[in-house]
Amino acid sequence: MDAAEFRRRGKEMVDYVADYLEKIEERPVYPDLEPGYLRDLIPTEAPCEPESFEDLMQDVERVIMPGITHWHSPNFFAYFPAASSYPAMLADMLCGAIGCIGFSWAASPACTELETVMLDWLGKMLQLPECFIAGTHGHGGGVIQSTASEATLMSLLAARCKAVRRVQAVESERSESDVLSKLVAYTSDQAHSSVERAALIGAVMMRKVPTDEHFAVREEMLKKMVEEDKAAGLIPFYFCATLGTTPSCAFDHITKLGPLCNKENMWMHIDAAYAGSAFICPEFRPLLNGIEYADSFNFNPHKWLLINFDCSTMWVKKRTDIIGHWQIPLGRRFRSLKMWFVFRLYGLKGLQAHIRKQVALAKEFESLVQADNRFEICAEVILGLVCFRLKGSNELNQNLLKRITKSREIHLVPCQLSGRFVLRFAICARTTESRHIQRAWRHITQLAFELLQDLH
Amino acid sequence: MDAAEFRRRGKEMVDYVADYLEKIEERPVYPDLEPGYLRDLIPTEAPCEPESFEDLMQDVERVIMPGITHWHSPNFFAYFPAASSYPAMLADMLCGAIGCIGFSWAASPACTELETVMLDWLGKMLQLPECFIAGTHGHGGGVIQSTASEATLMSLLAARCKAVRRVQAVESERSESDVLSKLVAYTSDQAHSSVERAALIGAVMMRKVPTDEHFAVREEMLKKMVEEDKAAGLIPFYFCATLGTTPSCAFDHITKLGPLCNKENMWMHIDAAYAGSAFICPEFRPLLNGIEYADSFNFNPHKWLLINFDCSTMWVKKRTDIIGHWQIPLGRRFRSLKMWFVFRLYGLKGLQAHIRKQVALAKEFESLVQADNRFEICAEVILGLVCFRLKGSNELNQNLLKRITKSREIHLVPCQLSGRFVLRFAICARTTESRHIQRAWRHITQLAFELLQDLH
Repeated sequence: MDAAEFRRRGKEMVDYVADYLEKIEERPVYPDLEPGYLRDLIPTEAPCEPESFEDLMQDVERVIMPGITHWHSPNFFAYFPAASSYPAMLADMLCGAIGCIGFSWAASPACTELETVMLDWLGKMLQLPECFIAGTHGHGGGVIQSTASEATLMSLLAARCKAVRRVQAVESERSESDVLSKLVAYTSDQAHSSVERAALIGAVMMRKVPTDEHFAVREEMLKKMVEEDKAAGLIPFYFCATLGTTPSCAFDHITKLGPLCNKENMWMHIDAAYAGSAFICPEFRPLLNGIEYADSFNFNPHKWLLINFDCSTMWVKKRTDIIGHWQIPLGRRFRSLKMWFVFRLYGLKGLQAHIRKQVALAKEFESLVQADNRFEICAEVILGLVCFRLKGSNELNQNLLKRITKSREIHLVPCQLSGRFVLRFAICARTTESRHIQRAWRHITQLAFELLQDLH
Repeated sequence: MDAAEFRRRGKEMVDYVADYLEKIEERPVYPDLEPGYLRDLIPTEAPCEPESFEDLMQDVERVIMPGITHWHSPNFFAYFPAASSYPAMLADMLCGAIGCIGFSWAASPACTELETVMLDWLGKMLQLPECFIAGTHGHGGGVIQSTASEATLMSLLAARCKAVRRVQAVESERSESDVLSKLVAYTSDQAHSSVERAALIGAVMMRKVPTDEHFAVREEMLKKMVEEDKAAGLIPFYFCATLGTTPSCAFDHITKLGPLCNKENMWMHIDAAYAGSAFICPEFRPLLNGIEYADSFNFNPHKWLLINFDCSTMWVKKRTDIIGHWQIPLGRRFRSLKMWFVFRLYGLKGLQAHIRKQVALAKEFESLVQADNRFEICAEVILGLVCFRLKGSNELNQNLLKRITKSREIHLVPCQLSGRFVLRFAICARTTESRHIQRAWRHITQLAFELLQDLH
C-alpha cells in the first residue's frame, strides 16, 4: 500500500470509525458466541499473495465485530471505563506515523521531553505536592507506564532495592538473599490482583491487610501486622495503598497510613488506577489528601480521563530511587502526544465536566436503586461506581446477573463484598446519558420482576 | 470533538501522516537541539478552556517535529528498524476505535481469539515445530508481549517457578528462599541489557557466557560454567540464547546449546528480537534450527515485519508452564488486528520481499565498505546490519561518528566489539533504496576523507 492508497483507505477508515461509534448502540453490547468461534471463520494460514482491502474490511464485520464486547457502547457498565475520545485517536494516528521508539533522549528528544512536561501538567491538575513535579530543578517527576500493574511492580522493585541497601548499610555481613527472604510487603485485602503478583515476581512476601466495614485499610490494622512481623524478625518495607478499589471503589486512609509508613521506613505506593482521574475536580481532591506521605503514586488516565489505552501515569518523589526501574519495556511509543491532544482540545474544564457528568449519572442510578425496596446499595457511592444487589441470597443475585448477561442489552460484572455476591454498575462510555441509566434500570427491574415471579 | 468534527480532522490527519512520510527525506534525520528545549516552547500548565485543532497542529510542527529523530527516514540507519506500514496504521485506527481492554476472553472474545490464531499463522510462516502451535488441541501457543524485555522476563519467571518446584519436589525441606539464592541463569556477554535486568527483577543470579570470535555462545563455554556452578552447589535453571545480537547480529549455536539445556533441565529461551522476522524466508530459516530444543521463543515483528510498535511475539512449548505469567500488564490492546491487516495486505510474499530487499541493501553497503581499503568489516553480514570501522584507533572512529552525527544527513549509532569502537549501519526504513545506500556511503567517505586530511 503506497501513500496515495493510504490517503484513500485512511479516510474510509476514519468514516468507518465514526460510523462505528455513532451507531454503536445498535449493536448488542455483549457477544453471543462460544469460545473458539473465530478459528473456523478464517483460514488456517496467512495468504501467500496480498488480498484486497475491501475483503479485509468485510471480514472485520463478519469475523471481528460479532466477537467484540463493545466497551464504548453507552450500555456498557462492566469493569471500569476504558477511556476513549476523538482527540486521543487523532494523536494516536500521529504517534503511529512518527513511529519513534523512545528508549533514550537521543532516540527522539520530543518523545522524552513532552512526556516529562505532560506529567507535570497533569500533576498540577491534580494539585500534587511540588515534590512530585519535575520542573527544571525538581527531584521528583512522572513517567508513563503501560498499566497500573507495571507501575506497582516498578514501585515494589524500587522499594526492594532501597530496603536491601538500607539493611546492608547497617549489617554489612547480611547476604542479599537473606535480606530478601525477610522482606515483607502489605496491601489491602481489596487490592487488585496485580499487587500480589508484583510481590510474586519480586520474590518477596506480601501480606493482605484486612479492611473495615467500608472496605478500607485503617492505620491500626496495618500497624498491628507490622509490629507482629518486626517481632518475628521480618523487615516491613512496602505498603501499596488503594484509592478506589476495584470491587467497590473504597479508599484506604492514607492520611494516617502515610505517617506510619514514613516512620517505619516503608515505601508507600498509592494505586488510584480508576479514581485518580477524579482528583482534577476540586470537590474530589480531598480524597487524595495524604499523598504528601507517599513515595510513588499512579493512576490510569486511560480509564477515566479520555486518553485511550495505554496511558498509566506514575509519579515519584525522588527520581533517583527509581532510575533503572522506570519501566519494564525499553522501547516506548510516543504516548504523551495523546495527553497533549486531549488536554488542549478538552481543556481542564472539559475534562472536569466529563468526570462530573459521570459521577452524577452514578448518583442518579444510586437513587433509582434506593427508591426500590427490593434492592440495596452495598457500598458508599463516591465516584462513578454503584455496587448493589437484590435483598436476598447470593444465588438470587447470580441468577439476576445471568439473565442480564443473557439479554445482552446491558453488560455488568459482579464482585464479592464480605462474602456477598454484588452487582457492579460502573458508568463507562463517554456517551452514556441519563436515558441510558433510566433504560438500564427499567431493564434490570423487569428482569428482577420476572426472576422473582419465577421463584414464586 | 464530536463525530462530525472527527470525520473532518481525521481526514486531515490522514493527509498530514501521508505528507509527513512522503516528504520525510526533506527533514534532517536527527534533531539539532539541546536537552530541555521543549519546556520553553509550551505553557507550564494545561489550558483551562479548549483550544483549537489548528493551533494544536501548528504546534506539532513548531514544538514536536524539530525534536523528532525520524526513524522512518530512508537516511536513518541507527539501532534496529522500527517497523512501519500503512496497513498497520489502518489497523491501529480500528484498534483505537474498538478500544477494548482484552484481559479475559469475555472482555472481548475476538481480541483473545484473533491473537491466538495470528500467532499460529506467524508460527507457521516461521515453520516453528508443531509443538509451538496452539491449533485446536495443542499444548503450546503464542502471545503478544509489548517488548522482548517483557518476553524475556516472563520466560525467566516461568523457569524460576518451575525450578523451585522441581527442587522442592525432591528436597521438600528446602525453603523457597534458599532455592532462589542458589538459582543461576546464563546468557551471552553480547545479550541485550534487558536479559540481565530480568534476572535482577527476578532476584536470581545471572552469569554472562563469553563468546567466540564471531560473538556467539558455543556449547563448551556454557557447559564449563554450568559444571563449575553445579560443583559449587548452585542450580543452573535458565539460558537465554540470542539469535541476532544487538551489537553485531551474531547467532548463538542453539543446535548444540539446546541439547545441553535439555539435559541439564535448564529452560532455554530464544531471543531473536531483530532477526526473527527473517526466518519467514526459507533461505534464512536454517538460522532458527535448534528451535525444537527451546522452551520459549520470542521476536519482534515491530522491528522488521512491518507491524508498528508494539508487537513482540512469544511462543511457548507448554502453555501450562507460563499460565499466570503470560504478561506483566493485565490490560491489553487489540494488537493482533495489526498482524491480520499486515499479513493479508502484504501476503507472505510481500513480507519476504521486504526482508530480502533490506538484506540485499546491507550486502550492497558491505561491498562498498569492502572496496575501500581504509575501512574494514567487523562482523559477518548475515541480515540487515553492517558493522564497520576505519582501520585505526577507536578515537579515530569516534571522531568519524561525531562528524556523521553532526552533519545530520544520516544517523548511525556505534557498538563495542572486543573492545573496539565500531559503527553499526542498519537498514531501517521501509523506503530505503539503493540510492540512499550509495549516498550514505559517499557521505561517510567524504567525512572520513576530511577527518583523515585534518589529522595530517
